[in-house]
Amino acid sequence: MSEYIRDGAEIYRRSFATIRAEADLSGLPDDVARVAVRMIHSCGMVDLVADLAWSAGAVAAGRAALRAGAPILCDAAMVAAGVTRRRLPAGNEVVCTLGDPRVPALAERLGTTRSAAALELWRDRLDGALVAVGNAPTALFRLLEMVEEGAGRPAAVLGIPVGFIGAAESKRALAATDLEHLVVHGRRGGSAMTAAAVNAIASEEE
Amino acid sequence: MSEYIRDGAEIYRRSFATIRAEADLSGLPDDVARVAVRMIHSCGMVDLVADLAWSAGAVAAGRAALRAGAPILCDAAMVAAGVTRRRLPAGNEVVCTLGDPRVPALAERLGTTRSAAALELWRDRLDGALVAVGNAPTALFRLLEMVEEGAGRPAAVLGIPVGFIGAAESKRALAATDLEHLVVHGRRGGSAMTAAAVNAIASEEE
Repeated sequence: MSEYIRDGAEIYRRSFATIRAEADLSGLPDDVARVAVRMIHSCGMVDLVADLAWSAGAVAAGRAALRAGAPILCDAAMVAAGVTRRRLPAGNEVVCTLGDPRVPALAERLGTTRSAAALELWRDRLDGALVAVGNAPTALFRLLEMVEEGAGRPAAVLGIPVGFIGAAESKRALAATDLEHLVVHGRRGGSAMTAAAVNAIASEEE
Repeated sequence: MSEYIRDGAEIYRRSFATIRAEADLSGLPDDVARVAVRMIHSCGMVDLVADLAWSAGAVAAGRAALRAGAPILCDAAMVAAGVTRRRLPAGNEVVCTLGDPRVPALAERLGTTRSAAALELWRDRLDGALVAVGNAPTALFRLLEMVEEGAGRPAAVLGIPVGFIGAAESKRALAATDLEHLVVHGRRGGSAMTAAAVNAIASEEE
């Protein structure tokens, strides 16, 4: 047991080398491949690539927004907790409104989940933001409704909710819009791979 | 797009029904099956069951510890963020020491990762705790060393680190001990499924 590698930098180096050796990144543009590598690192699955889809400008738009100081709007506290603050280029604000005390009453009034209702509190920051949905399909559906209603256009949307009810559908709906986006199609997703995508977009440092 | 389900309770009900219909839970004791269902819910993968391993008393020991007020010791902030506080039976403390300002110097002095060094700050709470390792293999290896050195015996250990270097090995090492444990063998793992396991152990409410 005493033989494990203890050097964090070396663990990262070997991990990324393994991923690049095993994952088929040949169909991905360079900027998306860098994001994919970090997402794979967060979940241990090199076959994640097969479910990835993106718009051509998504990574560049997300990075430019962060450099310009845009906030990162997260649907879940775990996504926000996974964003590595020192990678952010402009000390960007990382926002999760799900725990706001106004949210339960909002959800009741709007007849929806708390995850979706929490987006009402994004309205003043939505335009130009990097949105990271890593948990709730209803949050992603609600985001698309709000954009359609004219609440603002995020610079890019990471649509990576997870699960069995609505997740796949919500990601297909995002991919059908003209928003800059990156999604993991199907049931897979979650806060860890979503935070990993944010961290990859925030800095080119591996 | 307006046709998605907005009722949170109904989404949970349908999600768990889908999981129970699709996942092969036949080889699992009831208490482990309940934990597995929540873990699958957090990652969208019903085949997770194949990689699960556990000791017979793990779930009961973890639950008893939480009822008795034991703390939950987490290796990563994302794991701690994913623990649903209202499910905890005794307002249990949820601890993650990775961000403690003493950790970088400890890691330097001990010649290990910050994730492993952070466990030094668990020493006064390790005995009888529920340990949840959902990110770093080095943290799980270090935990086993500390237990061997007599630092205390956790009530149960959730060993679910993720990744390509050391993850599978660290989980095999845990499964070979006589500690009460639940692991996801192989590369898969992560903070979301680890927090889901904690939440399942904390309360039988689905």
